[in-house]
Amino acid sequence: MKKHDLVKSIKAKESMLCIGLDTDIKRVPAFIKNNYDNPILEFNKRIIESTKNHCVAYKFNIAFYESMGSSGWQALDESLNLIPQEIFTIADAKRGDIGNTSMLYARTFFETFDFDSITVSPYMGSDSLEPFYGYEDKWVIILGLTSNKGSFDFQMQELSDGRKVYQKVIERCLDFGTSNNTMFVVGATKPEYIQSIREIASDHFFLMPGIGKQGGSLELSLQYGAIDDYGLLINSSRGIIYASEGEDFNEIAHSEAMKLNRSIAEHITY
Amino acid sequence: MKKHDLVKSIKAKESMLCIGLDTDIKRVPAFIKNNYDNPILEFNKRIIESTKNHCVAYKFNIAFYESMGSSGWQALDESLNLIPQEIFTIADAKRGDIGNTSMLYARTFFETFDFDSITVSPYMGSDSLEPFYGYEDKWVIILGLTSNKGSFDFQMQELSDGRKVYQKVIERCLDFGTSNNTMFVVGATKPEYIQSIREIASDHFFLMPGIGKQGGSLELSLQYGAIDDYGLLINSSRGIIYASEGEDFNEIAHSEAMKLNRSIAEHITY
Repeated sequence: MKKHDLVKSIKAKESMLCIGLDTDIKRVPAFIKNNYDNPILEFNKRIIESTKNHCVAYKFNIAFYESMGSSGWQALDESLNLIPQEIFTIADAKRGDIGNTSMLYARTFFETFDFDSITVSPYMGSDSLEPFYGYEDKWVIILGLTSNKGSFDFQMQELSDGRKVYQKVIERCLDFGTSNNTMFVVGATKPEYIQSIREIASDHFFLMPGIGKQGGSLELSLQYGAIDDYGLLINSSRGIIYASEGEDFNEIAHSEAMKLNRSIAEHITY
Repeated sequence: MKKHDLVKSIKAKESMLCIGLDTDIKRVPAFIKNNYDNPILEFNKRIIESTKNHCVAYKFNIAFYESMGSSGWQALDESLNLIPQEIFTIADAKRGDIGNTSMLYARTFFETFDFDSITVSPYMGSDSLEPFYGYEDKWVIILGLTSNKGSFDFQMQELSDGRKVYQKVIERCLDFGTSNNTMFVVGATKPEYIQSIREIASDHFFLMPGIGKQGGSLELSLQYGAIDDYGLLINSSRGIIYASEGEDFNEIAHSEAMKLNRSIAEHITY
């Protein structure tokens, strides 16, 4: 997908919402588990059907599918095929390895599957990221400053030049791609740092987890992170897909998505 | 597997060798590809059969299996089952995510599969690593200083206290586990740094890639890295499994493994 199509989609839908399909068999409602051969697929199908007009991206947390073996990979494949062409898709895989291995991860998520983007971990540096850049209209989403408490362990360490590790990571990664094929993961739980990241990556999209269950501030995240071309995909996973565990789970997901869109719209002009 | 069993195995076999099963369908000899339903499995079976008495560990590079979809996961499962109980197994997956997601990765590689260990990326910090520690006799192998050129981008950055990022990572990770359940990836391509890592993690095993195709020095790696309990798993992947592309590939793999063991033994007393 091209950047201007993503921007156009945000404007048209008045939504920056990315819905995380962290679909856990343990949390799929019983009536689905008991009545369908592939309950993960059925759950996703209903969530996608009820939310697709109110979000611009879906993020698949690969761990959830991988943990189920072959049937999980099949559910991933079939779920991905249900997503309309104009919605941005993210393989949240956090991969990264030496070049010849990253090349295979890229092949998996960009060829075997046809995701628009993949999340990658930058720890191994340039040659672990480059293979993901060999695809037209595909995106690399690099971990910058993550939303979890462990981000303080290394990402927040101060370097000898006074910058933090995450700042160095984001700055260096500007060399690998452009704002047309690179995004950064920036946690909404740390709004006070978003401003400094925006100074480094002024026109990149940020994929922003941490709203909802993780307690991030939507208002401050938008205040510091949003730009003219929007520049943010606000992710919500559990807060939407598990908002109800009853038969109405898809309707409740729909209303939670609408509610989050309205909250975002309080601080943004589309 | 317990540490003393690994040490005993190294002593008995006079080998610190870990063989990397980076099995790529494109490099499997034609006579296997043309005659077997599952050529990856057949290739691994022959490599394992011919080398199992001359190595103490096998490392599966998960990217290679994942890139083949369901049939790759099946080949991984069946290949793992061929490995004798007393040989240490590594899922080289380089995973790491927020806690609830890392928990699922741990479940995949320690429950769905029964690997002895998994490689993990430390970028997201403590809570991304902790879920891997919930298993008895399972090991967490944390990326410390990797063998690729990209390691200079972030791992080698100097912190404000004068240490490098990789040193901080290794030191901090000592808090999460012990030398009985934690190893570090330390590239053999950077022998001049191994000494400083040994000072931080004096009795931990290091998983050491970078010998062979990547050009690391075996002699210096052993000089700086080996300890009384050996403390090293020297990995070779392509240099062994693809040493020949003919029908004799398994015999040549056998002789390459023996050769590497002899080279190691020139610098080590078992």
